[in-house]
Amino acid sequence: MSQKIYFTNSPARIIDEYINDSGTPKTFILTDENTAKCVLPHILSESRQLRDAEVITVKAGDINKNLDSLSYIWERLQNGGATRRSLLINLGGGMITDMGGFAGATFKRGLRFVNMPTTLLSAVDAAVGGKTGINFNGLKNEVGAFKEADAVIISTTFFNTLPLEELKSGYAEMLKHGLIDGKEAYRRLISYNIESADWDNLLDMLEESVNVKRRIVTEDPFEHGIRRALNLGHTIGHAFESHSMKHNSPIPHGYAVAWGCVTELILSRLLLGFPGEELHRFADYVHDTYGPFVFTCEDYPELIELMHHDKKNMSSEINFTLLKDVGEIEIDHTCSEDDIKSALDIFRDLMHI
Amino acid sequence: MSQKIYFTNSPARIIDEYINDSGTPKTFILTDENTAKCVLPHILSESRQLRDAEVITVKAGDINKNLDSLSYIWERLQNGGATRRSLLINLGGGMITDMGGFAGATFKRGLRFVNMPTTLLSAVDAAVGGKTGINFNGLKNEVGAFKEADAVIISTTFFNTLPLEELKSGYAEMLKHGLIDGKEAYRRLISYNIESADWDNLLDMLEESVNVKRRIVTEDPFEHGIRRALNLGHTIGHAFESHSMKHNSPIPHGYAVAWGCVTELILSRLLLGFPGEELHRFADYVHDTYGPFVFTCEDYPELIELMHHDKKNMSSEINFTLLKDVGEIEIDHTCSEDDIKSALDIFRDLMHI
Repeated sequence: MSQKIYFTNSPARIIDEYINDSGTPKTFILTDENTAKCVLPHILSESRQLRDAEVITVKAGDINKNLDSLSYIWERLQNGGATRRSLLINLGGGMITDMGGFAGATFKRGLRFVNMPTTLLSAVDAAVGGKTGINFNGLKNEVGAFKEADAVIISTTFFNTLPLEELKSGYAEMLKHGLIDGKEAYRRLISYNIESADWDNLLDMLEESVNVKRRIVTEDPFEHGIRRALNLGHTIGHAFESHSMKHNSPIPHGYAVAWGCVTELILSRLLLGFPGEELHRFADYVHDTYGPFVFTCEDYPELIELMHHDKKNMSSEINFTLLKDVGEIEIDHTCSEDDIKSALDIFRDLMHI
Repeated sequence: MSQKIYFTNSPARIIDEYINDSGTPKTFILTDENTAKCVLPHILSESRQLRDAEVITVKAGDINKNLDSLSYIWERLQNGGATRRSLLINLGGGMITDMGGFAGATFKRGLRFVNMPTTLLSAVDAAVGGKTGINFNGLKNEVGAFKEADAVIISTTFFNTLPLEELKSGYAEMLKHGLIDGKEAYRRLISYNIESADWDNLLDMLEESVNVKRRIVTEDPFEHGIRRALNLGHTIGHAFESHSMKHNSPIPHGYAVAWGCVTELILSRLLLGFPGEELHRFADYVHDTYGPFVFTCEDYPELIELMHHDKKNMSSEINFTLLKDVGEIEIDHTCSEDDIKSALDIFRDLMHI
């Protein structure tokens, strides 16, 4: 893997060095309206190399990670005279790194791009690993490409202005990496209090967490096997997320993943004997930190239909990553609709709804 | 390179074997309205495996190789329940293999696709080599991806219903491969009469020609160096093509390449001493086969502006592949605007306009 990942308290210095070393003729910065206000001015004031960069701003929010925004980015790159040697810096959350990565992967069949994630969620998840894309026709990340950023610059200095909800959303992916990695990392994570996070410790834990993902992605970049471990919590989490989007009450991605992890650990308990006490401890942690996700039996058919659309499915069956225990992964486990309905019942019990 | 290229007189048998061997759960066929009438019924009647395939038909013509059509293909794949294990067969000319390849490269971040080129042009050029994409905002192939088809099935049996203009268009790319490859292949090509083509000889020459491209692409799949040899005639050819599209009198791609090759051989003569008698012989062959491309000095600024948008440009300069002699390639040759204007003047002389 040639991609370089920096963990730093001086992101402006790192991007300046990167541009200096790579001899970039023209730089574009993709960002959203929020990041353009809260983060971009700091970076621009501290960087020498970004002064002449052309800024492309799109509307914030996952709902704008769509074909219209992508088309606008392509148009701005075209009108700005971007060539294959140009550099696109994706400065923002996962919405920006996903969509900017896809724009970078496809404009003139590919120009170089660097991800600078400004949220914990994107730092630990979207910015690393080469999955790019947009939502399409009501489904998350329905079109996209596998293309790694040339470099990723991760800094907790970006997180100062983040609302607590955003931090918690990112922390859910760190919990998931802990569940996949093993008991030691997992214990540290469920003992840490993200609600009163200290940035230096978080940067260290973030490096550990990103490296879990990195090891797995290096082994299986195109998701033919073990990479599907990273989908723990996501088959059901994405269904929760799509469902909430369709019903006009969108939930943060990380919350969906946290709730999805609980439900998939329930499936793991039912089908693989995942330890009951671990399940209850995790469910309590998620309930205390994220609250409950509220739905009724009447939503089951729609949720299951959404699971059928998941990209990991190889046929008409629904495919899950399950755990025998913390750190003991079983990929490609198919479940019956009855199993899924039972798990959704138990989830609602554990969330006290 | 894992891609398999078949040269065959029995394309239906080959696709049946391919589907049988690869265990495809669901097959989609992308085609355009013309191919759906002239070619698809034959294939369907001869194939056992394609009986249940879902057919996606788009409007014909390069003007429809656009975001609307791509979006329609994504939607049909989505509604048809396509998964990453599904197979997309791109049955058509370069418009279909380019756009279908891009749809295949991006839907759920990539499903398998097979190209079955039904024109000589797409058989010798678009269907092989992994360049996929669509036109965007008035520019050719402005967005796309590098992604090779899993297999390419090439058969001259598809060409029976092709108009002569289509055959000549494809033959221009074969001429270009001859110019790149060397004198022996080149001599054979300018002695062959494409206007009274016999299919068996053409299949042999096609195999030779496709293998020129294949050797170069294998050496440099992402066009960092020697692959740019294949762009001979295309920097100017694409400008001719975009110009004609903008002015609502589109010319066939291969004709643009033939005229582009003449102009770039003129640049080769001016800057690298390409032999005058070869230039004149080639220009006469192109004039006799393709007629002249008519434009005036007033079109020069727009043509040069279009050349600046070429994807091969690494900076603000215009980048060419030129030849010292037949088979002697120099990639990455930049030319001044004055050189280009002189070449356009001489081109108009050689075309008697």
